[in-house]
Amino acid sequence: MDERAVRVAVVGLGNLGRRFVRILGDVADTVRKDHGVALRLVAVADARGWAADAEGLAPDRVLECKRDGGSVGELRPEGHSGEALAMIEGEAFDVLCEATPVNIQHGGEPGLGHVRAALRRGAHVVTPNKGPIVLAWRELRELADANGVALRFDGTVAGGLPALYTGMRDLRGARIDRIEAVPNLTSGLVLELVADGRSWEEALAEARRRGALEADPAWDVDGWDAAAKLVILANAVLGAEARIEDVRRTGIRGVPLKDAAAARRAGQIIRLVAVAERAPDGSLDLTVAPRPLGAPHPLSRLGRDDMGVVFATDLYGTITMLINEPTPIPSAATMLRDILDIYSS
Amino acid sequence: MDERAVRVAVVGLGNLGRRFVRILGDVADTVRKDHGVALRLVAVADARGWAADAEGLAPDRVLECKRDGGSVGELRPEGHSGEALAMIEGEAFDVLCEATPVNIQHGGEPGLGHVRAALRRGAHVVTPNKGPIVLAWRELRELADANGVALRFDGTVAGGLPALYTGMRDLRGARIDRIEAVPNLTSGLVLELVADGRSWEEALAEARRRGALEADPAWDVDGWDAAAKLVILANAVLGAEARIEDVRRTGIRGVPLKDAAAARRAGQIIRLVAVAERAPDGSLDLTVAPRPLGAPHPLSRLGRDDMGVVFATDLYGTITMLINEPTPIPSAATMLRDILDIYSS
Repeated sequence: MDERAVRVAVVGLGNLGRRFVRILGDVADTVRKDHGVALRLVAVADARGWAADAEGLAPDRVLECKRDGGSVGELRPEGHSGEALAMIEGEAFDVLCEATPVNIQHGGEPGLGHVRAALRRGAHVVTPNKGPIVLAWRELRELADANGVALRFDGTVAGGLPALYTGMRDLRGARIDRIEAVPNLTSGLVLELVADGRSWEEALAEARRRGALEADPAWDVDGWDAAAKLVILANAVLGAEARIEDVRRTGIRGVPLKDAAAARRAGQIIRLVAVAERAPDGSLDLTVAPRPLGAPHPLSRLGRDDMGVVFATDLYGTITMLINEPTPIPSAATMLRDILDIYSS
Repeated sequence: MDERAVRVAVVGLGNLGRRFVRILGDVADTVRKDHGVALRLVAVADARGWAADAEGLAPDRVLECKRDGGSVGELRPEGHSGEALAMIEGEAFDVLCEATPVNIQHGGEPGLGHVRAALRRGAHVVTPNKGPIVLAWRELRELADANGVALRFDGTVAGGLPALYTGMRDLRGARIDRIEAVPNLTSGLVLELVADGRSWEEALAEARRRGALEADPAWDVDGWDAAAKLVILANAVLGAEARIEDVRRTGIRGVPLKDAAAARRAGQIIRLVAVAERAPDGSLDLTVAPRPLGAPHPLSRLGRDDMGVVFATDLYGTITMLINEPTPIPSAATMLRDILDIYSS
């Protein structure tokens, strides 16, 4: 097998970015052997600085520097202070992994600017960052096409579950009548804690203690995260041009404690469910709302670390995909999946 | 979008072949519009004869002729009596859809010869026929590579569920520790009928009445079908070189009636489960056996029209895929999925 050298740049070294750098170090040998792809980390950036070395940056050094609360800009001799954009525009790489924090309600930066800059200079982009994909799907797709590069974003929906790939590739030729998804772990965790008998405040505090809740709890609790994922499913799989404002969105704050406990006694679970469905007039109906799920619903046995997506189709039956994801590793690993999708034959 | 003309030949006009011809007629316009692929049926063959027309055969005419118990060899002026091999070797087409009956225990013919002949002359092959893939996986893969064509067989495992695509593509880079599958509908139907209180003979008779049982019930009941599918999963997804004799196989004949009923009372189901697992010494352990499945097992809510596959991985968590397939249409449609996988960018 011919070996292909792939120079990887990573922007954003939080929860997902750091785990992805670790994965790169762990799988490099296997991936070279099994897939003929030689991955080399050549540039990294965090919120305060960046570092680059065409010969390769050792993942361990990058992680070591972050472990102490430092910035990769302090790495010597490869470090620079300043914004990641300078790195993206000035350094040589083949694929950008964009893993900065999600920002949808305030313009999508810095992720959107990073993705644009990388595509413009002819680099592939893989990203689990929903912001750019929700806010600028059409523009970015056209930009990628115009520059002859790939834009992959499997990690934006339901963590490590390859639901976007299945929807976009394996259902080709069929009419998809309905997509139903529980694409978010945090809201399910909060609902399970409430069903356990915790008060609403206790449940939120516990979710925060476990690191599951964003700084702004509204993101998960009011259904923004699920709505963003639904928009990506609708646009990428159903060919829609939906915006997040098009989603009728009901969060989980209104779920009464007694309902959560009663559902569990009845063998049901309550989850924040995202649904895309064709209305009789052909328009697309997008909703996010808490719903009780019982047998035989294919999502009714989701545990607190599980997410799922259901595709109801005319030709391929009803296909359900589930993932058990007790850590963010699968979400981070989607960047590896996306890179190998671009480079493996 | 540039339109690509694809000349399709179908061999085998039984349950799957006829449904696929119908699908070709139904989706041609949509597929041309959405995917830029112009599918044209140029040749068909059944057990008694074949017909070919480079300008295209109307699916309705083919189906009409079969509906009356006839052979496509009787179509005028396109028909010929004789074996499909003559058609495969003599007519011009781009992709062969091989849908003759499965034969694994008696040498794989006629499917194996059809697949070999098509690959040798440089045509792509798509097939839901397990025989050739189980018996000659390595040879056929090398033959396809040597001729620069594709061999796709998504329909061989779990009907319309794209489990092979997920396993082969979306789990790249990860170590798959375990595959667990309920890839066969008939054995599950029989077990459910037994749990309903039918005797073994009544359950088999009912399954036969519904058209679910092969002429030789051992194929489903003794686990041959599940073992064949497990071998394909192991070879295609795990890179093994397994043969069907390598599977430790226990059928469902030994499941006592009282166990089936007791499992249901306990909220469990009994299914014929196929498992591929790495032994501590690195060898691959392949087993097919009836097993009770209860919560929280991801396959424990399978209904009688459901199949499922679970992949336990190191990087991508545990991924479960389920399909509800009340008719054979999804299985037939896998040939469309496979063709579009070859021709869509």
